[in-house]
Amino acid sequence: MGLKAILVIADGMADRPIKELGGKTPLEAANRPSLNHMTKTGICGLLDLISPGRPPGSDVATLALLGYDALKVYSGRGALEALGSGVKVLPGDVAFRCNFATVNEQMTIIDRRAGRIANEDAVQLAKSLQKVRLKKSSGVDFLFKSTIQHRTVLSIRGPKLSTAVSGSDPGVIGSRVLEAKPLDDSSEAKLTANIVNELTREFHKTLKEHPVNKERVNRGLPLANIILCRGAGTIPNIKPFSQIYNAKAACVAAAPLVRGVCKAAEMELIDVKGATGTPSTNYLGKAQATVQALKRFDFILLHVKATDVASHDGNLKQKIEVIEKVDGLIGHLLNNVDVDSTYLAVTADHTTSVLTGNHEGDPVPIVITGPYVRRDGVEEFGERSCAKGGLNRIRGIDLMPTLMNLIGKTPKFGA
Amino acid sequence: MGLKAILVIADGMADRPIKELGGKTPLEAANRPSLNHMTKTGICGLLDLISPGRPPGSDVATLALLGYDALKVYSGRGALEALGSGVKVLPGDVAFRCNFATVNEQMTIIDRRAGRIANEDAVQLAKSLQKVRLKKSSGVDFLFKSTIQHRTVLSIRGPKLSTAVSGSDPGVIGSRVLEAKPLDDSSEAKLTANIVNELTREFHKTLKEHPVNKERVNRGLPLANIILCRGAGTIPNIKPFSQIYNAKAACVAAAPLVRGVCKAAEMELIDVKGATGTPSTNYLGKAQATVQALKRFDFILLHVKATDVASHDGNLKQKIEVIEKVDGLIGHLLNNVDVDSTYLAVTADHTTSVLTGNHEGDPVPIVITGPYVRRDGVEEFGERSCAKGGLNRIRGIDLMPTLMNLIGKTPKFGA
Repeated sequence: MGLKAILVIADGMADRPIKELGGKTPLEAANRPSLNHMTKTGICGLLDLISPGRPPGSDVATLALLGYDALKVYSGRGALEALGSGVKVLPGDVAFRCNFATVNEQMTIIDRRAGRIANEDAVQLAKSLQKVRLKKSSGVDFLFKSTIQHRTVLSIRGPKLSTAVSGSDPGVIGSRVLEAKPLDDSSEAKLTANIVNELTREFHKTLKEHPVNKERVNRGLPLANIILCRGAGTIPNIKPFSQIYNAKAACVAAAPLVRGVCKAAEMELIDVKGATGTPSTNYLGKAQATVQALKRFDFILLHVKATDVASHDGNLKQKIEVIEKVDGLIGHLLNNVDVDSTYLAVTADHTTSVLTGNHEGDPVPIVITGPYVRRDGVEEFGERSCAKGGLNRIRGIDLMPTLMNLIGKTPKFGA
Repeated sequence: MGLKAILVIADGMADRPIKELGGKTPLEAANRPSLNHMTKTGICGLLDLISPGRPPGSDVATLALLGYDALKVYSGRGALEALGSGVKVLPGDVAFRCNFATVNEQMTIIDRRAGRIANEDAVQLAKSLQKVRLKKSSGVDFLFKSTIQHRTVLSIRGPKLSTAVSGSDPGVIGSRVLEAKPLDDSSEAKLTANIVNELTREFHKTLKEHPVNKERVNRGLPLANIILCRGAGTIPNIKPFSQIYNAKAACVAAAPLVRGVCKAAEMELIDVKGATGTPSTNYLGKAQATVQALKRFDFILLHVKATDVASHDGNLKQKIEVIEKVDGLIGHLLNNVDVDSTYLAVTADHTTSVLTGNHEGDPVPIVITGPYVRRDGVEEFGERSCAKGGLNRIRGIDLMPTLMNLIGKTPKFGA
């Protein structure tokens, strides 16, 4: 059997030392026998996703971890999110991440997530919104889709659009819904902003009269009476992963963004029952799907969103629990792949502090095991122990060439 | 006496852990008292020739080690190889690495090296090939030279040539000789491909009737009846080494490629009797020549090809033996230079795995000794021990400024 590689990304797993953990990070405090087994038998180091100190979004971090130069190819989050949600986004389409939210009559935002509206309600509302008609003169059409709870995506299509527009989402409760504005002087940016504003108004009209919302009032739930958009993006202009490395690649992930990045890289998406992108996701199912997929693919990216969810929620206890479940997932991989022909790498796409609830620019730990890695004798997997590892400190963009090099797939430069 | 610097490049010396060595690399397994003395008294680290994980050819790696930005200046291997073989290559000339090979009547390759043809036969055949005349209409002329065994170089000269051509060498036995093809739409690329194809045909005609080949049949040797070309290149547009560092620089190397890179950098080439670019090279002679040359030069690059030869051949035992001979060479240097004024750096131009027989993208170890290096207390010279060194992990392009800085020759940036 040929050499294979798996990259496990535990989203936002890395963290900062926490007083109540006696100065340990959540990762250092977690019971993590499989991760520690990996450092004992592998090579480890630190990874700056983009560059030291710079907090990355999950979008640019995932691009970087797949080996792309995010500084050059990043073209906004919206299109990646839309792609990963199953919306067909073509070159030139401009897509947005959107939320169902609640506004009062003054268009002031009361709840940015409309009470984390249930999927069933969101789907029904979205169906009605897709029926909204834009003025024909614009020549622009749109796709609207709800994904998980309050999350939705909007992709607009027309001959002359631009990502140089601000969104309608002010990002905080108590602010009014924003007018989308062109960010440059182009007619494309003006048109795109106009379309967003037109849709915002028309969506609002449709939503406030919608039977689902009338019913929500009866159930004492916040209205989902506005759509807030942000993150205008087009699909990035990147070479397919398989062309760069001559490797068949697939992705096991639930988070739409990560699925979108992998789809943009033309990797195959593998669906797993019960994989939800939440702390109650199907960890074992994802590990099993990865082991299965290894028969057909040279490289699998396995992404777990739950670590990041717990971090953003500031839920230290849950973060540690989720890390321990990720450790179990790693254990299943180690026990079920052919360790003589499989390289396994584990890292995070960024540091997310449970204290600040934000992505931080601190580097993340990385470990790689496999038949011919240069073992470095690091005992434990953690933010500080890995700083002493044989990989030293590398950048996000360098990880994929490093991993593909181990399976003989990184192209030679020169002769 | 002024400060001096020597860089010893042991080609392909770095490797991966090997089971039958108990998980050690060949370098770690070798008896290497002089190299270990260097780490004990010097500073060490890891070097990514181009970037982490990316396997470099010896051409780009040598450019990088001399401080050039290979990603910008690399212009193909052929011209470097030709330059280093004593062929005069001018700007605009397009040169190729070529082989004497053996084809059958269907032009299928039976032996890519014509039985590693002896130098005497190759020289005689090359003389006849130089007499081949191209159609005058093309305005193109050529130089053809045999170097070592089956290896030859072809340099073509004309007003409008291009390196955007594929070669005639399919790289494997059992394939047919390829047509050279233009790789872009330019008339220059088309003309260059046509010239290569015309020469391939004309060379074949001359070779198959050649008395040397008739004699080879009688001796039971494979015919040298075709010339296979690859690696179209022009000389790189680089500043002379001495201009960048205000340092007089020379090169002690047998391998034509390394000599070519140094010649392109306008360094002086020093010839050493018995230096062959093979495991039976004159190690002591090279060390002695380096010590001698230090009287006239500020910087000497000393290159040993043998480590790479053993690696490509998958000859583990020989690789260890050669490393031990390199260690002896280092010992001679340490015992014969003024250690109070001489900096000595030792590294490899890439990892070559004895298991895969390929250049790999794993980083290489580097050590520097000299009067004012910041000693880091690393005990042994090896791929893993050096990862803990005070230089940390740097890039190929950074080594020469680091070394020249120690002798006060790296120009200041800013004021």
